[in-house]
Amino acid sequence: MQESVTTIAIGPDRQAPRLLEKAIVGAGARVGALDDADALVWTGAPTAFPATLPPAVRWVQLPAAGVEDFFAAGVFAAHPGVVFTSAAGAFSHSVAEHALMLLLAGVRYLPEQLRATSWQQREFFPHVGSLRGKTVTIVGAGGIGRALIPMLAPLGAHVIAVNRSGRRVTGQGIPADVETVPADQLARVWSHTDHVVVAAPATDRTRHLVGADELARLKPSSWVINVARGSLVDTGALVHALSAGVIGGAGLDVTDPEPLPDGHPLWTLPNAIVTPHDSNPPQLRLAAFADHLGANVVRFLAGEPLHALIDPDRGY
Amino acid sequence: MQESVTTIAIGPDRQAPRLLEKAIVGAGARVGALDDADALVWTGAPTAFPATLPPAVRWVQLPAAGVEDFFAAGVFAAHPGVVFTSAAGAFSHSVAEHALMLLLAGVRYLPEQLRATSWQQREFFPHVGSLRGKTVTIVGAGGIGRALIPMLAPLGAHVIAVNRSGRRVTGQGIPADVETVPADQLARVWSHTDHVVVAAPATDRTRHLVGADELARLKPSSWVINVARGSLVDTGALVHALSAGVIGGAGLDVTDPEPLPDGHPLWTLPNAIVTPHDSNPPQLRLAAFADHLGANVVRFLAGEPLHALIDPDRGY
Repeated sequence: MQESVTTIAIGPDRQAPRLLEKAIVGAGARVGALDDADALVWTGAPTAFPATLPPAVRWVQLPAAGVEDFFAAGVFAAHPGVVFTSAAGAFSHSVAEHALMLLLAGVRYLPEQLRATSWQQREFFPHVGSLRGKTVTIVGAGGIGRALIPMLAPLGAHVIAVNRSGRRVTGQGIPADVETVPADQLARVWSHTDHVVVAAPATDRTRHLVGADELARLKPSSWVINVARGSLVDTGALVHALSAGVIGGAGLDVTDPEPLPDGHPLWTLPNAIVTPHDSNPPQLRLAAFADHLGANVVRFLAGEPLHALIDPDRGY
Repeated sequence: MQESVTTIAIGPDRQAPRLLEKAIVGAGARVGALDDADALVWTGAPTAFPATLPPAVRWVQLPAAGVEDFFAAGVFAAHPGVVFTSAAGAFSHSVAEHALMLLLAGVRYLPEQLRATSWQQREFFPHVGSLRGKTVTIVGAGGIGRALIPMLAPLGAHVIAVNRSGRRVTGQGIPADVETVPADQLARVWSHTDHVVVAAPATDRTRHLVGADELARLKPSSWVINVARGSLVDTGALVHALSAGVIGGAGLDVTDPEPLPDGHPLWTLPNAIVTPHDSNPPQLRLAAFADHLGANVVRFLAGEPLHALIDPDRGY
């Protein structure tokens, strides 16, 4: 009987995280030693990856979304008969939730309200906004963007998704009326949006994607949220726009420079929210990876295509 | 030609809000004088309501969700042939959005992060939570609750809705897996939920619905959000629970007493967020009423049943 149960090993830690064991067992497999295993969940460094795997091991789940280091270490080339999957997409949810939190806190005037120590209803009334009927542009419609769109839809926000190709963004929970704009036409978006969420990768082309010109075309009520990389926003231009009331505010989980040094104006501007790159903290990463793993074990058992398959020839 | 266009009057203000005119015109009717009108949008006091209406007026849209004052002023009895609608349901969205904002800000540790003036990533990491996979109990599944459930669903939260009857809560965007619990079984919910949103009406039975016993059964990570009425939460017990770490925190748009007096501990407790009953400020009310009006004008023109019909015999 026992031989008919699919066995999955977790390595290299002797003491595997309980959450991962639960995910495997919950999906219908059992956790066992590598020598008995049909698959391996690898939580360690690329350099520590086994040089040889038992022949029964057909699938390896890696713990990271980006697997350049495993590619560089020759892991894929050394195991040509094995299917590898990454954790791509697993960690987007928490970052998207963080972006939504920063945007809602800004639009509804939370920073000033949190500082208050007296009842200032009449003073605050005019500043409390809503996302209902507002346009939110998400620059970079990858995993984070695709996780954020379904969160914005029930709030009555209209979403403009900006991606490289301009191909319509689709996916679970993504409404059909989401507008998709190719990155090379981003310039025409700034004066048509209420808010902006930056969720694009950091490249030479996206550096200072939000600068003085772009900020000037937004509205005095606009919030700019950055959960991607600090370099995508021109910090100097942003500080000026926040001080001068060019835009409503900024919610930043990433900064440039990062860490943001003590005494930087972003720490004390009343319309800036800074969180120290903690939109995806370790304990949430582990929980998200466990969910991802569980879903892949279910697929492995059913013989279905796995999520986040790595193409060894392309290295991602 | 002009006679075939349905005319809607706005009264009593000579200068009607532009948003309401836009809603009427956008829905396909025109704005005109009461003498030419097929319907009336009344934005004034019950006591100023016209004693007689031109016979062509078949429908009156009132501006409030609660219409006790119109009932008391005899408005419905004086116009037996006219259909009246209230604004019931129109104002729930903004309050639900505010509740979501307070809950997300709490769960993701925003208050402490907003106070920080230095990069404290390691210190903050363990405190940043997520709604994903968490249970949120909404006490009072009326308009606000039904607006909030679709906002929570894409965040991966499991919702328990508490209403009087225990009848399953349904509606647009409400997932089939929402658990509904009758109010008389509320006691069994406290130890099974992660967070609580109070959105029930204030009655003798709901006074201090959240007290010391209920707070003690929640978790040290639980947030309690109140967007209903201050009296539903026992303020003394809450202050103690917040100070002692019995729960994670509280987000309050309403307080008891209200306004919250200067020097009250809720102003300075690090895990309390107080907003001064501004979850539904005047400018958002007008926008929401305009949306409600527009939808009803569309229905009026199509001969379909109107939203929020008032039953004059029952007075609501």
